[in-house]
Amino acid sequence: MTTTVKAIAATSATEPLTPTTIERRDVGPHDVAFDIKFAGICHSDIHTVKGEWGQPNYPVVAGHELAGVVTEVGSEVTKFKVGDHVGVGCFVDSCRECENCKKGLQQYCTGGGMVGTYNAIGKDGTPTYGGYSQATVVDENYVLNIPDGMPLDQAAPLLCAGITLFSPLHHWGAGPGKKVAIIGLGGLGHVGVKLAHAMGAEVTVLSQSLKKMEDGLRLGANEYYATSDPDTFTKLAGKFDLILNTVSANLDLGAYLGLLAVDGTLVELGMPEHAMEVPPFPLAGMRRSLAGSMIGGIPETQQMLDFCAEHDVLPEIEVIGADYVNEAYERVLASDVRYRFVIDTATL
Amino acid sequence: MTTTVKAIAATSATEPLTPTTIERRDVGPHDVAFDIKFAGICHSDIHTVKGEWGQPNYPVVAGHELAGVVTEVGSEVTKFKVGDHVGVGCFVDSCRECENCKKGLQQYCTGGGMVGTYNAIGKDGTPTYGGYSQATVVDENYVLNIPDGMPLDQAAPLLCAGITLFSPLHHWGAGPGKKVAIIGLGGLGHVGVKLAHAMGAEVTVLSQSLKKMEDGLRLGANEYYATSDPDTFTKLAGKFDLILNTVSANLDLGAYLGLLAVDGTLVELGMPEHAMEVPPFPLAGMRRSLAGSMIGGIPETQQMLDFCAEHDVLPEIEVIGADYVNEAYERVLASDVRYRFVIDTATL
Repeated sequence: MTTTVKAIAATSATEPLTPTTIERRDVGPHDVAFDIKFAGICHSDIHTVKGEWGQPNYPVVAGHELAGVVTEVGSEVTKFKVGDHVGVGCFVDSCRECENCKKGLQQYCTGGGMVGTYNAIGKDGTPTYGGYSQATVVDENYVLNIPDGMPLDQAAPLLCAGITLFSPLHHWGAGPGKKVAIIGLGGLGHVGVKLAHAMGAEVTVLSQSLKKMEDGLRLGANEYYATSDPDTFTKLAGKFDLILNTVSANLDLGAYLGLLAVDGTLVELGMPEHAMEVPPFPLAGMRRSLAGSMIGGIPETQQMLDFCAEHDVLPEIEVIGADYVNEAYERVLASDVRYRFVIDTATL
Repeated sequence: MTTTVKAIAATSATEPLTPTTIERRDVGPHDVAFDIKFAGICHSDIHTVKGEWGQPNYPVVAGHELAGVVTEVGSEVTKFKVGDHVGVGCFVDSCRECENCKKGLQQYCTGGGMVGTYNAIGKDGTPTYGGYSQATVVDENYVLNIPDGMPLDQAAPLLCAGITLFSPLHHWGAGPGKKVAIIGLGGLGHVGVKLAHAMGAEVTVLSQSLKKMEDGLRLGANEYYATSDPDTFTKLAGKFDLILNTVSANLDLGAYLGLLAVDGTLVELGMPEHAMEVPPFPLAGMRRSLAGSMIGGIPETQQMLDFCAEHDVLPEIEVIGADYVNEAYERVLASDVRYRFVIDTATL
C-alpha cells in the first residue's frame, strides 16, 4: 500500500508545471518518512524538466532541496525519530559498496551512480519524485539532520546550493590566509561568499557588473569586481588560491586562470553547455589546475549543515506558493531572484 | 674582458644550425664557470629556433640541458669548487625576491619571470646562450650539483626532461599504492616511467601503438596500452590517480580524463598548439583536475638529481657530434630517437 501525496509535475518540456498527485512507498525497515515543508528551486530543476540535460522521464516532480519533519520511521531506523527536522539533497541512494560510497563520496558512486532524488529509478524499480510535493520516504542513510534552530525554509537550499559550494571550499582548503574568488553572485554564489567568509578566507566576488556589489559586501565579501572591466584581470592577476565558478556560461577561462596564484585551482561548478576552451600556458605557467566538483557526500553534507548552524550561514530566500513556480522558473532564467526561491509546500 | 667559446647557432627559422663563436662573461663574485661536456636536445629547442613559440632573438644558441665540469669559481662562491660536476637546466636567473622565488619555485617567478638559459636577456642586459657550446658562466644559485658517479652524458637530459617529470610526480604524490599513467613514451615519457617506478607507483604507459611496448616494460612500466584501441578507454576507466601527458598534440581530453579515479589529476606537460577542449562532465563527475606543470625549481631539481643517483634512474640517450645536430632535429620531429639526443660538445 502506498501513500498518495500532492505534488507539482512537469509533463513535457514545454508545458507549465501543473498540480498532480504521486505515490510514495510504504515505510520500509530502514526508511524515514517525512512531511516536506519547503523545497528549493535549483536551476538544474529547470534544465531537467525542459529536457536540456537529456530526455527526462515525464512526469517529472523536480526538487532536490528538501527540508521537513519526520512523521514515521522504519523498525530498524536508528538515526532519526518522529518530529526530527530532516533534509534530503540531490540523491536518495547509491550502490553503498564501491570505494567512493565506502569513503562517503556517494555523489561519485561508481557502482551504477547515485540515485537522483527525481527523474531517476530507485532500487525498487519505480521512478523517483523530488521535493515539489507534500511528503516523501527515503532510506535513513541518505537523510540529513537539520540542526536545531535552523529555519527549515532557509535550510532547504543548503542541501544542494550549500553543499555544492561547501565541498570544494572544504576540499581545496579555504580558510584563514587563503584568497578565494567566487564567480557569479546568484543562488550558488551568494552561499559561497557566506561560507568562504565563515571559514575565514579572504573573499572576492567576480560578477559581470557591480549591480549587486552592496549585497556581496554585506554577505561577507572583502572585495567585489566587475568582470566586464578588463582592468579587473590586470589588477587581480595571480591573486587567488581558489576560484569557484558558479556561472554555467562558457567563460574566457584563460583570463580567469590568470587570476590564480601558483598552485591555485579554478573549480567549475556550473555545467557549461559546450566544452571549455583551456589555453595550456596559463595552467603550466603557474602549476594551476582546472577542476570540477559535484555537490558532496552524505558525511560532508551533514558537516556542512552543522557548520552553517554554528556559523549562522543561511541562504537568502524568497518563499513562494506552489502556484508561483512557473513564474519563479522564468525569473530564475532571468537571474531575477535574490537569491533562491523556496516553495512552501503547505500551499500545495 | 669576455671569453670566446665555440657554439652551434640558429641564425633564422629556416636555415640549418651552423658553427659559430659566442662570448661568455667574466666570472663575477657569485659566478661558476664550467666546461659544458654534454648538452641534451629538447623538442622545445626546435620550437624556439624555428620561431614556433614567437620570434626568437637570432642568433639562438639553444640547449637547456647542460652538464659539465667547473673550471673557475667567483670569489664569493661557496657551493662549488673547480672540478665539480655541475648542471644547468632551463633557467639561469630569476628575480629572487618574489614569493615563488623565495619558496624555491623559480620557474614560476612573478618578478619578471625566470631568465631562460637561451633566447632571453640576462640581468647584465646581454642575450643568454645555451648549452650547444663549449663553456658557460652561471650564477651559483642556478647551478646544480651532479652527484658523484652519475655519467655526465646521461645527467644532461635530467636537467629538463627529468625535472619536467619528477616535479609533477613528486607534487601530486606518486608513490606506493598510487596508479600513474604516462601518455607518450618519448624523451619525457621514458624518464617518467623510470621515475614513477622508482618512486614505487604502479605505472602504465599509454602510447599510440604497442610499438615500444618492450621498451616500456623494461623501463619499469607494469602495463602498456595502445590508445589507438578504443577498448583501452573502457578497460582503464576510472583507474588512475595521476596521468602525465607528455604529448604536445591535442588529445581527446574527455576520454583521458575518464581514465582518472575520483580526485585524480591529469597534468599537461607537452604544450599543445591549440587551446584544449575540456568537456565539463568528466571533471565534475569525479572531482578530477586538469593541471599544468613546468619543469621545477632549483631545490627540487637538486632533489631530483639526488633521487636519480640513489635509484639509478638515467635516461636512455644517443650521443651525437656537433655536425649531426640538424639531422637529429629531423629525427626528433619524426619521433625517431630512443630516447634523447645528447651533443658531445668536445666535437665542436
